[in-house]
Amino acid sequence: MDASAGNSAPVVFDTDPSRYVHWKLAVEPPLAFLSMDVVEERGLRPGYPLKLNSYDLGVDIELADAVMRLRFEHPEVRAVVVGSARDRVFCSGANIYMLGSSTHSFKVNFCKFTNETRLAMEDASAHSDLKFLAAVNGPCAGGGYELALACDVILLVDDASSAVSLPEVPLLGVLPGTGGLTRLVDKRRVRRDLADAFASLGEGVKGKRALEWGLVDEVVAPSRFAPRTRERAAELAAGTKARPGPGVKLAPLEPERGPSGTRYRYVSVEIDAAARLARLTVEGPAKGEPTSAADLRARGSDLWALRAFRELDDALLDLRFNRPELGLLVMQTRGDAAEVLAADRALWEARDDWFAAEVLLHMKRVLKRLDLTARSVFAVIDRGSCFAGSLFELALAADRSYMLAAEEDDDGGPHVALSPLNAGALPMANGLSRLATRFLRDGVPATPMGEPLDATAARRLGLVTMTPDDIDWDDEVRLALEERASLSPDALTGMEASLRFAGPETLETKIFGRLSAWQNWIFQRPNAVGPQGALTLYGKPSRPRFDWERT
Amino acid sequence: MDASAGNSAPVVFDTDPSRYVHWKLAVEPPLAFLSMDVVEERGLRPGYPLKLNSYDLGVDIELADAVMRLRFEHPEVRAVVVGSARDRVFCSGANIYMLGSSTHSFKVNFCKFTNETRLAMEDASAHSDLKFLAAVNGPCAGGGYELALACDVILLVDDASSAVSLPEVPLLGVLPGTGGLTRLVDKRRVRRDLADAFASLGEGVKGKRALEWGLVDEVVAPSRFAPRTRERAAELAAGTKARPGPGVKLAPLEPERGPSGTRYRYVSVEIDAAARLARLTVEGPAKGEPTSAADLRARGSDLWALRAFRELDDALLDLRFNRPELGLLVMQTRGDAAEVLAADRALWEARDDWFAAEVLLHMKRVLKRLDLTARSVFAVIDRGSCFAGSLFELALAADRSYMLAAEEDDDGGPHVALSPLNAGALPMANGLSRLATRFLRDGVPATPMGEPLDATAARRLGLVTMTPDDIDWDDEVRLALEERASLSPDALTGMEASLRFAGPETLETKIFGRLSAWQNWIFQRPNAVGPQGALTLYGKPSRPRFDWERT
Repeated sequence: MDASAGNSAPVVFDTDPSRYVHWKLAVEPPLAFLSMDVVEERGLRPGYPLKLNSYDLGVDIELADAVMRLRFEHPEVRAVVVGSARDRVFCSGANIYMLGSSTHSFKVNFCKFTNETRLAMEDASAHSDLKFLAAVNGPCAGGGYELALACDVILLVDDASSAVSLPEVPLLGVLPGTGGLTRLVDKRRVRRDLADAFASLGEGVKGKRALEWGLVDEVVAPSRFAPRTRERAAELAAGTKARPGPGVKLAPLEPERGPSGTRYRYVSVEIDAAARLARLTVEGPAKGEPTSAADLRARGSDLWALRAFRELDDALLDLRFNRPELGLLVMQTRGDAAEVLAADRALWEARDDWFAAEVLLHMKRVLKRLDLTARSVFAVIDRGSCFAGSLFELALAADRSYMLAAEEDDDGGPHVALSPLNAGALPMANGLSRLATRFLRDGVPATPMGEPLDATAARRLGLVTMTPDDIDWDDEVRLALEERASLSPDALTGMEASLRFAGPETLETKIFGRLSAWQNWIFQRPNAVGPQGALTLYGKPSRPRFDWERT
Repeated sequence: MDASAGNSAPVVFDTDPSRYVHWKLAVEPPLAFLSMDVVEERGLRPGYPLKLNSYDLGVDIELADAVMRLRFEHPEVRAVVVGSARDRVFCSGANIYMLGSSTHSFKVNFCKFTNETRLAMEDASAHSDLKFLAAVNGPCAGGGYELALACDVILLVDDASSAVSLPEVPLLGVLPGTGGLTRLVDKRRVRRDLADAFASLGEGVKGKRALEWGLVDEVVAPSRFAPRTRERAAELAAGTKARPGPGVKLAPLEPERGPSGTRYRYVSVEIDAAARLARLTVEGPAKGEPTSAADLRARGSDLWALRAFRELDDALLDLRFNRPELGLLVMQTRGDAAEVLAADRALWEARDDWFAAEVLLHMKRVLKRLDLTARSVFAVIDRGSCFAGSLFELALAADRSYMLAAEEDDDGGPHVALSPLNAGALPMANGLSRLATRFLRDGVPATPMGEPLDATAARRLGLVTMTPDDIDWDDEVRLALEERASLSPDALTGMEASLRFAGPETLETKIFGRLSAWQNWIFQRPNAVGPQGALTLYGKPSRPRFDWERT
């Protein structure tokens, strides 16, 4: 596979509306109109014109940014019309030539990112009371329909050419990879036999039948489509709670990137290429973080909790897409635990204010992105660290944690501590806190909030995995990292995905566990990606040749 | 891949204790001792001596048979000691050379079958109150520990060499494929970081630490092991409800097998090799099936419901392993719906009797096996069919159903009907009935039990998918079958696995959805099965070489 196919030019995730290429965002409070208008020749890589509003990662990065900015910068917007700026085409899904020419790792990560974006829309609807309406004005295929499925309401124009469809199985020999099948049966609860018929029908379903099968919520005559869209969006907006403005502008992150790592304000990434690992260090807040809801807003995107977690998010995405050869993330922290606990407390106490609530929701999403990162994650809790409260979630998200046990007559070594944010404000995809997931068997041990716990106490409570003393520390940590980095990356990915999400399953865990795992399998199968595979041959004159053996 | 690697000599599933090669079954009511004693040179295929109580499919077929026979033939047995007849070795798991030399399809189906067997043990514990104790008297690795995990209680001998382990990730670059990871965190609720450490440690965990980590339930000194095993098994048995005997002997199925299909008493399989499909026809009962609990028992394994579903089970397994190239199962029925409904009613009314209850539980397991079959399943409801009650579950398990709509002035055509068995007695792996899963959105429509429904009524209620009339019937059904058989088998497998199990997730759906999907992916990856892959090179002097890219 050509190195340019997915991982040569680094992908950059930080953007803002002034730089959007493929989306138009018009704010008309309480509505916003987010319209897809993909520029064919402006794909992330050359080689695949983005025809018919088909998308690549660059298009989705802008969508993810727009959804986040609507939440922070436009509290006056209560419903978003997701539409097309093109006449007679809504969106024809992920670009097939882009997919067909991408590496396996890029395909998998592309689908993961687009899934995270769709889930962020549903998170905004559920938790920020920001509603989405898909205004489907023409053919709406594959990823296009999956985008509509992520909205609260789907309106379909009732004409001879407009249909919703999931043509992946019949035309490409792969699955709809952005949650489509799961949302059909688990979100919209479409009858499974109708879902089966729909998803094996290349041309999709139109008009009244789409409504009857539960694939859309309303079909509208072409002449009525624009006013009815606005009317229905206004109804959605009217049902939401007002969020008193003004919005909070999100400043650009502007990290310094170098070959050996990236330096943000609070986050640094150090690459150890030989050991195939990256050290992510998150600094806690300095003294003087605000405490009241009003002061939190005034601090805006410079607020530590918002800035540090936006940086962490960017760093995680950068590693996922631009450094796939690194198998291990070592999570570290630096700073004063008392300041982290104070920052957490301020957010928790201000949580009825929409801005503080949005900051918490954002932290939650970033931690979920960490949970879903297909790398081993080890937390190293050493002297100078501040794994307290929200930053202790980094240790709880890790596959293992190593905490230094200092001699008793020594300085006491590092400490960890819990804050109210560990108790459910930052749930995992399974709906439980990381603590509740960790202690499914015996329940979360009673631990006073804010109490500093040394290694002995933390281990006794089950909060950390290993606690070597000063004598063993260097060797034990080094050996653990080396050993981990030596194992099969595929087996680790499967193992971690199986161990990280104990407890209840949700739409979200189903998408990442079940659907994505099957899609990854298919993305590896000759029937899709071999020289005669359906994905490989899409748009070419020859028909795919399948190995008919069923598993 | 050599054709002998998995699919040349047909695998036969019907066996009985007199023919066991690898297990010894000793019945000492209320206990039974099921002891593994694998004969090295008696593997299903040549080429992999089954050393150290390692197993292949043949060993697991006997285990599955033993578990079923204990339920039917030995109601006096209330607890089973699963042990080893060998000194100082419990079980070293699935044979690696067997796995390494098998086709992808065989690997996947081997894991599916062993998973179904482990789940059948847990089903016996949960629903037949038959308890299992794993007496681990030596090394217990991989599939060996997964067998122990399927038991209610695990006893480990406390000596220098006995450990439980899941060495698949570090030694083979694959996952423990029989539910091990899922049972660690979801059944035993082992802390995820300890599970991570355990599953990446080739040598496993011994003695007190195994107990502390929650990997076993008791460690016992070698001198106390035999008496303590018996004592603890007797305690398990004492906590169960008595089942008044005598047992019901399961007669052999003795089908006639030919190149174009198989003929059982009630089930027939017709192979259409050109169309790559198999027609499975289940005949309903003749008049004169028994109605009282006593008469049901007296009829024994000749009871229609038991015999027909045992035959169906055998037919499904035969197709899975011996005809992997057939992509489509067409389910048909023949007979008198009234007799099916009467047979269902008799079972339902006698359900407090252990034998009737076992028959229902067996039907449930067979239908689950159908749900899990990685083939498309279409039900064809034509004239002469009897899709009523338990046999209507075959249509509900199908991905789609086609029902003939006859002219009104005609004979009325085929009818379907519901019985009490459709309302929850035969739940899917998700814990819901097939009807409840089908109608997640609007709830199960009110339908009088036993009322015959023609195509128009069945379609209106949402019970069937398509209802062509006499004029269109032949063409529409033929086209549907042809179209289905033309699609990518991999994409269909992924799609069906995603659409069949809407609603809640359970340990069982997690194993088959999440864990198996990841394992199938890994089984396709060069890091495991390529020339330099870890599974390929196991036991050879060269070390695997990995592509380090993470997905």
